Amino acid sequence: MPDIEGRKAILAIHAQNKKFAKDISWERISRRTVGFSGADLENMLNEAAIWAARFNQKEINEKDIEEAALKVKLGPEKKRLQSEEDRKMTAYHEAGHAVVSFYSKHADPVHRISIVARGVSLGHTLIPPTSDRVHETKTRLLEQISVMMGGRVTEELIFSEMTTGASNDLSSATRIARAMVVDFGMSELGPVFLGPQQELGDFGRVMFYEPAAVSPEMQAKIDKEIQKLTENGYQVAKEIVSRNKKKLDKIAKALLEKETIEEEEFAKLMKE
Amino acid sequence: MPDIEGRKAILAIHAQNKKFAKDISWERISRRTVGFSGADLENMLNEAAIWAARFNQKEINEKDIEEAALKVKLGPEKKRLQSEEDRKMTAYHEAGHAVVSFYSKHADPVHRISIVARGVSLGHTLIPPTSDRVHETKTRLLEQISVMMGGRVTEELIFSEMTTGASNDLSSATRIARAMVVDFGMSELGPVFLGPQQELGDFGRVMFYEPAAVSPEMQAKIDKEIQKLTENGYQVAKEIVSRNKKKLDKIAKALLEKETIEEEEFAKLMKE
Amino acid sequence: MPDIEGRKAILAIHAQNKKFAKDISWERISRRTVGFSGADLENMLNEAAIWAARFNQKEINEKDIEEAALKVKLGPEKKRLQSEEDRKMTAYHEAGHAVVSFYSKHADPVHRISIVARGVSLGHTLIPPTSDRVHETKTRLLEQISVMMGGRVTEELIFSEMTTGASNDLSSATRIARAMVVDFGMSELGPVFLGPQQELGDFGRVMFYEPAAVSPEMQAKIDKEIQKLTENGYQVAKEIVSRNKKKLDKIAKALLEKETIEEEEFAKLMKE
Amino acid sequence: MPDIEGRKAILAIHAQNKKFAKDISWERISRRTVGFSGADLENMLNEAAIWAARFNQKEINEKDIEEAALKVKLGPEKKRLQSEEDRKMTAYHEAGHAVVSFYSKHADPVHRISIVARGVSLGHTLIPPTSDRVHETKTRLLEQISVMMGGRVTEELIFSEMTTGASNDLSSATRIARAMVVDFGMSELGPVFLGPQQELGDFGRVMFYEPAAVSPEMQAKIDKEIQKLTENGYQVAKEIVSRNKKKLDKIAKALLEKETIEEEEFAKLMKE
Amino acid sequence: MPDIEGRKAILAIHAQNKKFAKDISWERISRRTVGFSGADLENMLNEAAIWAARFNQKEINEKDIEEAALKVKLGPEKKRLQSEEDRKMTAYHEAGHAVVSFYSKHADPVHRISIVARGVSLGHTLIPPTSDRVHETKTRLLEQISVMMGGRVTEELIFSEMTTGASNDLSSATRIARAMVVDFGMSELGPVFLGPQQELGDFGRVMFYEPAAVSPEMQAKIDKEIQKLTENGYQVAKEIVSRNKKKLDKIAKALLEKETIEEEEFAKLMKE
Amino acid sequence: MPDIEGRKAILAIHAQNKKFAKDISWERISRRTVGFSGADLENMLNEAAIWAARFNQKEINEKDIEEAALKVKLGPEKKRLQSEEDRKMTAYHEAGHAVVSFYSKHADPVHRISIVARGVSLGHTLIPPTSDRVHETKTRLLEQISVMMGGRVTEELIFSEMTTGASNDLSSATRIARAMVVDFGMSELGPVFLGPQQELGDFGRVMFYEPAAVSPEMQAKIDKEIQKLTENGYQVAKEIVSRNKKKLDKIAKALLEKETIEEEEFAKLMKE
Repeated sequence: MPDIEGRKAILAIHAQNKKFAKDISWERISRRTVGFSGADLENMLNEAAIWAARFNQKEINEKDIEEAALKVKLGPEKKRLQSEEDRKMTAYHEAGHAVVSFYSKHADPVHRISIVARGVSLGHTLIPPTSDRVHETKTRLLEQISVMMGGRVTEELIFSEMTTGASNDLSSATRIARAMVVDFGMSELGPVFLGPQQELGDFGRVMFYEPAAVSPEMQAKIDKEIQKLTENGYQVAKEIVSRNKKKLDKIAKALLEKETIEEEEFAKLMKE
Repeated sequence: MPDIEGRKAILAIHAQNKKFAKDISWERISRRTVGFSGADLENMLNEAAIWAARFNQKEINEKDIEEAALKVKLGPEKKRLQSEEDRKMTAYHEAGHAVVSFYSKHADPVHRISIVARGVSLGHTLIPPTSDRVHETKTRLLEQISVMMGGRVTEELIFSEMTTGASNDLSSATRIARAMVVDFGMSELGPVFLGPQQELGDFGRVMFYEPAAVSPEMQAKIDKEIQKLTENGYQVAKEIVSRNKKKLDKIAKALLEKETIEEEEFAKLMKE
Repeated sequence: MPDIEGRKAILAIHAQNKKFAKDISWERISRRTVGFSGADLENMLNEAAIWAARFNQKEINEKDIEEAALKVKLGPEKKRLQSEEDRKMTAYHEAGHAVVSFYSKHADPVHRISIVARGVSLGHTLIPPTSDRVHETKTRLLEQISVMMGGRVTEELIFSEMTTGASNDLSSATRIARAMVVDFGMSELGPVFLGPQQELGDFGRVMFYEPAAVSPEMQAKIDKEIQKLTENGYQVAKEIVSRNKKKLDKIAKALLEKETIEEEEFAKLMKE
Repeated sequence: MPDIEGRKAILAIHAQNKKFAKDISWERISRRTVGFSGADLENMLNEAAIWAARFNQKEINEKDIEEAALKVKLGPEKKRLQSEEDRKMTAYHEAGHAVVSFYSKHADPVHRISIVARGVSLGHTLIPPTSDRVHETKTRLLEQISVMMGGRVTEELIFSEMTTGASNDLSSATRIARAMVVDFGMSELGPVFLGPQQELGDFGRVMFYEPAAVSPEMQAKIDKEIQKLTENGYQVAKEIVSRNKKKLDKIAKALLEKETIEEEEFAKLMKE
Repeated sequence: MPDIEGRKAILAIHAQNKKFAKDISWERISRRTVGFSGADLENMLNEAAIWAARFNQKEINEKDIEEAALKVKLGPEKKRLQSEEDRKMTAYHEAGHAVVSFYSKHADPVHRISIVARGVSLGHTLIPPTSDRVHETKTRLLEQISVMMGGRVTEELIFSEMTTGASNDLSSATRIARAMVVDFGMSELGPVFLGPQQELGDFGRVMFYEPAAVSPEMQAKIDKEIQKLTENGYQVAKEIVSRNKKKLDKIAKALLEKETIEEEEFAKLMKE
Repeated sequence: MPDIEGRKAILAIHAQNKKFAKDISWERISRRTVGFSGADLENMLNEAAIWAARFNQKEINEKDIEEAALKVKLGPEKKRLQSEEDRKMTAYHEAGHAVVSFYSKHADPVHRISIVARGVSLGHTLIPPTSDRVHETKTRLLEQISVMMGGRVTEELIFSEMTTGASNDLSSATRIARAMVVDFGMSELGPVFLGPQQELGDFGRVMFYEPAAVSPEMQAKIDKEIQKLTENGYQVAKEIVSRNKKKLDKIAKALLEKETIEEEEFAKLMKE
């Protein structure tokens, strides 16, 4: 994956045959496309050009590029008739993610919240990293788990209900928790690598093949640590959402009205 | 799978070369064919045309389409000689599903009950969703388990017997229960994803491969949660059927007489 | 597998080029060939024709067809020299099956018992279903397990011995017991499906893949339930055989004399 | 595998082009070749012809056939220089098998004992069945386990030692013990089949696939039953050998002198 | 892998067509390239030639070769913009490895520490063996585990944080610990080989195939021994780093200033 | 594998075109090449011829053949520079094997000890069987385990250290221990075969397929018995080495001086 300098260079190449508005900040676009491959970036600029052409614009502007970035990552917008109840559920679910992220000390700012369905998702909350991370810390990973729990927590607090829509959130949170325990030595199991090892060891003068799956007993301990981490993330999210219910209502209401809230507006609503 | 708008569009295409009665409600047909693929819908209209032709109708009417939909989903009717005892068992079994569904607060209305054998099934109770669901909730999943238990519960209450015919119901109920525990975080095991994960995690700057089958110990906990959910669904169904035995008898009797009961008649019988 | 109507139709087709006695009841033949495929039925009529030809009969009669049915299902008769002790063991073993079946309330009548070796079996006790079953019940499955235990039980009661010949019986009994526990929800593990599930679940709007092998702990519980069911079937058979030892002796003695006993004679011997 | 009648017929065919002594008892040869395939029998007669030709006999006699049978089953004689200690160990080991068999009530008579190495075996004790068995009983299987333990038991009683040569005996004894527990329902686990089942069950109207490996817990119980059976067989053999040490010495001594003892001589030595 | 004599010979061959400074010590280069294959060595000399050519040098000098060796083993330098905080984290992490190594009695001297990113690593601490090891001892393996723990320990002591960057260290430390337990009999499980064995055993006169995976119970014991070894290595590293915090600060500070510290400078800083 | 007679015959064939010293004892060479295949023997004579040619000998003598035998089995000599400490470690390790063997009652005499590296091994202690073994006993297998432990034991007693070089010894000792428990019934688990069985059983008249992996519980018991056997072998070796430290020092010292000690010299040193 290209880093910010790489992305700038790639964008420069693919921007050559297109006409862009003069006030475009390539610096900002490069920063907000963390995780895009070279192909994604090329794709994004082409989609932006198509979008601009559809509205007979002579130049591609930054909004066009942002819309194109979303389409590349989440798929095209998908208008579907929803009941008011369904829209409300989605609005609160996404607002939950956003509010927990807002009150997480090391999280990046919420860039956009939307209840417009795209691809298979009913809504989305974008929290792109503001810089290319070099070190990822335990503290930030714990916060990420809490943010992912924000949706489910809100379903329960507001509707006394759980939906199947939180499944992807649970899967992502569990994946982080597992890596913390297994790969990063960040649990009570201590500084040990618990994933499979299939390389040859070379000690002194002999080579040894070491197949190294952990025992069922250790697997059970890993499962318990994962449960602790997700449960803890859930409790943190619950506390944040409970203490900030008014903010939550405000964001959900705004989403039901406008369907999409951008970074500035979100920040304004949270500060009021 | 196409949603309601998609189905309407697909039906419009395949309806072009056929002659339909003027009072057909495509809206209603689209709503009742949730879960049909494009091929299923095309197939359904062709079967309806064949059916209408067999009776020398000049136009295809809505009943023809409904019959065709059933054939597409369950297979053709299968007349087989059955003992009166067998017919009674089937009638009560299906009535059990219908009665539990009727008293489940969030269930869709029972559309049709029948003891006419089709494909491998001895009877069927159709409860199609009245709309394209966006959120599926824990409450509704619990009710679905109870509805599936309605047949077995009735076998025991009326005949003090169990049949092998409930096996598909148990399998479906268990599948929902498993997903609630494993995929949806809806059990006492908490907000954690317990299915297999085989993707690469990308944290900070390193990629990790995480094979993630849960431990035998966690598997055992999952099994216990599944048992709790199915057992609980069984008890709920038992209570509903026990409290409404007269209604059950009435529905079973009607089925033995008419073999098939439609939505309106079922509603009428339940209200009397 | 064709049902009774299907079998009648198939027999009608393959009977066309052959000459049959006029008193043949195709109804009865169809009823007694439950579980025969179309190929089995064709095969059976051809064997009957060969058999009749061997004895220079001008017409094929019902006995010929019955003999042919046996050859199709169990293989040809196999004359082998046996010690009197071996013959006695076989006679009691088969008599055990027959006597337990006779005293099982829901079992079909014993159609034929024989100690003529066929294929790999030393003897056989035929208890064909008298009708195409629609519902199979827990009660009948329990009785089937007991009938299968009848042979082993008799070995122990009469000879204070066990033989390897009961292995197929144990295997069949265990297969039924396992299905009762795993597939049919008929054990103390409750109304839950415990077999493997490998389908996709479709709840609300998301598809989930659920690999679902049960845990070693649940496997152990399944094994215990299976043991309970076979042990219980064994005890039931033991009680029946113990209480009816005179009948058992009578049947065994008749078998040693005549080698094969037909339905009517068996019924007569049991009533005397 | 052909039975005695089958073997007689096969021998008759392959005997046609060869010249045999007139006093040959084909009945006896057929009886002693239990477990020989058609190819084995043909092979045996050819080897007998070669053997007879080597010694310029005009006719093949019964001794030639017996020698040929041994070569077909165990491989050719293998003269190898052995220390006196090794020969003594082998003699006692084989004598142990023979003595335990002699005192086992249902065992067939010992046909030949030899300490002439053949193929991979250092010696052999032949105890061919005297008839085609129809029923194999628990009693006889237990005795077979004891006979197999006779070699190891003797090693310990005479030399206070154990050799690797008993490994095949242990493997055979364990195989019988396992089948008794798993296949034949002859252990304290009761009348249940504990092997793998992979067939389709057909109950009532539905087909079910049942993969049926037993649980680790049941596997452990099976292992314990197997240990009990082999341990018990060992104790029985130990008692027999201890009580008949003089006979054992006599047989071992005879073997060291003559290398091979035939049925009649063995019987005579045991009776003296 | 070639030993020091082998490497000298290989270098001599590939050095033939190139021009080198006269003061180059091939002895020293051979000693510092432990673990290089023949292809690595050839590659290294070619890279050195390219590097020298880039700066218009007429001769390749020893620095060029050292730079080339690094490129061959870790990949090319990778300039990326990092926050000051990220640089500080990396500097302390690498300093941690170096300080623990310095105070480990049997460790080789630290050859170079750097926070210049190369390939996928953010920094590196090179501690090449000063000679071709013949015997690798338990004492040295324990020290290697401690050195690997030096980075994680420092993260916690200085920043009260854990990063994902320690994952490779944990993986390497665990691999050594596992080999100590499984392959080298260096744990409390005693002098036994606990890896898989799949060879044929040849004892006395028989060949036996022995598949030999250890039991889940033994796997659990192995996991516990591995945890003890890594935990112990962590504690040793913690003690060393805690007692030498001033040295640590000094090294980290030097790294932030100069990005790379060579052997001599490191030694000087540690002695001051 | 050819036995001594076979080896003599094979040597005779391949010796035909070569010129040998007249005092060569083919008997002795045959006896010392236990475990050599026909190809190994041919290879050995060819290597001996090359060796003799290198020194311009007109005839191949017995020393040449012995050197060739070593090269065939262990690979060519490998001169590598070793520290004095490394040489000392190797010398004591090999001396440990030799001393334990010397004091093991049933072991064959030590034929040669060497600290000249060959192939992947740093040294070797040759203890070839003096005759083709027919029976391998429990006593001898236990002694073999102790001899293998001799190296590790010496490392600990002399250097208070453990090296990775003992890994092959542990692996061989464990392989013998496993076979004793699993294949030979020589442990407290009794006279039972605990390896996998995959043959068909043929009892009475039916064939049964028996897959027979032991349970995890039994695997754990096997692991414990293996640990007991290796631990016990270690203790026996420790006692022998401790009681004979002076002899050990003498052998190690001689090895450091002469690098290789032959049978006669070893015997002499031990007797002094």
